[in-house]
Amino acid sequence: MRLLDQRALPERERTLVCRRVAQVVDAIRTLAVRGAPLIGVTAAYGVVLAAQEARTRAQFERLVGRIRASRPTAVNLAWAVDRMTSALGGAPDEAVALREARAIHREDADLCERIGETGARLVGRGAGIMTICNTGALATAGIGTAFAVFVKARAKRPTIYALETRPRLQGARLTLWELRKARLNGVLVCDSAAATLLRDGRIDLVITGADRIAANGDTANKIGTYALAVLARAHGVPFYVAAPYSTFDRRARTGSDIPIEERDPEEVLRPLGLSGRGIRTMNPAFDVTPARLVAGYITDRGLWRPPFPRTG
Amino acid sequence: MRLLDQRALPERERTLVCRRVAQVVDAIRTLAVRGAPLIGVTAAYGVVLAAQEARTRAQFERLVGRIRASRPTAVNLAWAVDRMTSALGGAPDEAVALREARAIHREDADLCERIGETGARLVGRGAGIMTICNTGALATAGIGTAFAVFVKARAKRPTIYALETRPRLQGARLTLWELRKARLNGVLVCDSAAATLLRDGRIDLVITGADRIAANGDTANKIGTYALAVLARAHGVPFYVAAPYSTFDRRARTGSDIPIEERDPEEVLRPLGLSGRGIRTMNPAFDVTPARLVAGYITDRGLWRPPFPRTG
Repeated sequence: MRLLDQRALPERERTLVCRRVAQVVDAIRTLAVRGAPLIGVTAAYGVVLAAQEARTRAQFERLVGRIRASRPTAVNLAWAVDRMTSALGGAPDEAVALREARAIHREDADLCERIGETGARLVGRGAGIMTICNTGALATAGIGTAFAVFVKARAKRPTIYALETRPRLQGARLTLWELRKARLNGVLVCDSAAATLLRDGRIDLVITGADRIAANGDTANKIGTYALAVLARAHGVPFYVAAPYSTFDRRARTGSDIPIEERDPEEVLRPLGLSGRGIRTMNPAFDVTPARLVAGYITDRGLWRPPFPRTG
Repeated sequence: MRLLDQRALPERERTLVCRRVAQVVDAIRTLAVRGAPLIGVTAAYGVVLAAQEARTRAQFERLVGRIRASRPTAVNLAWAVDRMTSALGGAPDEAVALREARAIHREDADLCERIGETGARLVGRGAGIMTICNTGALATAGIGTAFAVFVKARAKRPTIYALETRPRLQGARLTLWELRKARLNGVLVCDSAAATLLRDGRIDLVITGADRIAANGDTANKIGTYALAVLARAHGVPFYVAAPYSTFDRRARTGSDIPIEERDPEEVLRPLGLSGRGIRTMNPAFDVTPARLVAGYITDRGLWRPPFPRTG
């Protein structure tokens, strides 16, 4: 499996080759590959490698378990692994696994197109749209989730205000790079300046991606999303979440059922050159936005509001 | 005049020697010296250099005008220059200037002590306090403004959650360094994670500094302060502003009378290693928090609420 190593972007476009499950798990954990839908697709191909690598059914299950546990918050990972194992019926058949992984891969690209079409209807001519993190081709197997809306609304010439998204700077490093590649009008904004832009009337709507959406609509997404939703509400700006059906988790009743990943504090300190100074910090990678702050869910199946239709 | 060059902190403690007005103006503009009260004290000594340097009264006025124009938002700068020129009565007398600058210097240290005493009464045992930017000894000629409250409340063992304060990272670089020097319990927090901590009930109060406070209580301070005030209100956490009387500007009726400095976008891009990529960005250095979000103003003369008493 060949992956674009996102840790090196935008400086270098480096390819990572994964031949063993351990390498896939490592790529997911270290954010070489990231973005909820793309993690799902990567995990699906990881199961193909597990089928190749395992000599026994028990060994296969152990490897699959490791893939599933590589990151906790994005439900697309568990969703893809479940879909793979149910297609395989527990038997590590490499050909069946490859067929199903390719289906997941193709389907994700198609979901992105449809999310973009749903969302583009919400965008007015010359709109200012604020977003956080990266939700484009680097986060999916297609044109993205929230980013797909920007692409499909291109003719209306929106301006995309991308928050830089500390600590990993996915907005500054990845979204600005993708906006330029997509010939979209992008502006980088410090997370701390979002409120000023909202107050100045530059922002007509906010659209973010999602890592997991509970049955009541509570949404886990990159740290900073919840603040953005509170600030959007305080300024009367509608806040939308864009995600494929596979990001909706019926088993999570509310946001408090969603596990929030705490990552290494070094991720906060290293980019500032402040490692090794004994500085205490914390690094919750996600937060939960309560459903009451979300104007609507932009999905491949139209604009949703809870209670959500059954998916499968 | 000898200044600690804050641009090199916390890596190096470098001293900057200013012998001419142009060097003082440059130090203020480039943030070698920063923090509203300290800018005021620095400007006062700058006027001493102007008195030394000028050969004519017209030349003196030109030099003083340059000092006054070095940064627009912090009113303490204009306040200190006004106080110097009124002490001098327009005549560039070096001895009179030095006496007045020293008085401003000593007074600022004393104001810090009193601000700390006013604020410490608001702090409960083991309180969690969130703050932004740097308001300590590096921002004043004493123990600080908001930071003075932390120092004076030390016996109650508060935990100070310091926002990193993009783009210039005064929180991460300066406040964490000062917290450690002051033997206070400090935790570095990404600006984007403030809302999560507020929601989790870790924060009992928010205290920030100020660059200028209008007559109605609207407060200009480091970019990100306004977002923090909105988020504090959304979580029922009281938000206080700590400042000496010299930060209150009766001539500014409301926040819209306060000039907001736009700084070089390179300040946003350079720390991320994203210079020279043609990325569009914006860099408002301050924002305005409306008075309705402020629970009280912690001053050297007690806890204030608008309408403010006359000061002089």
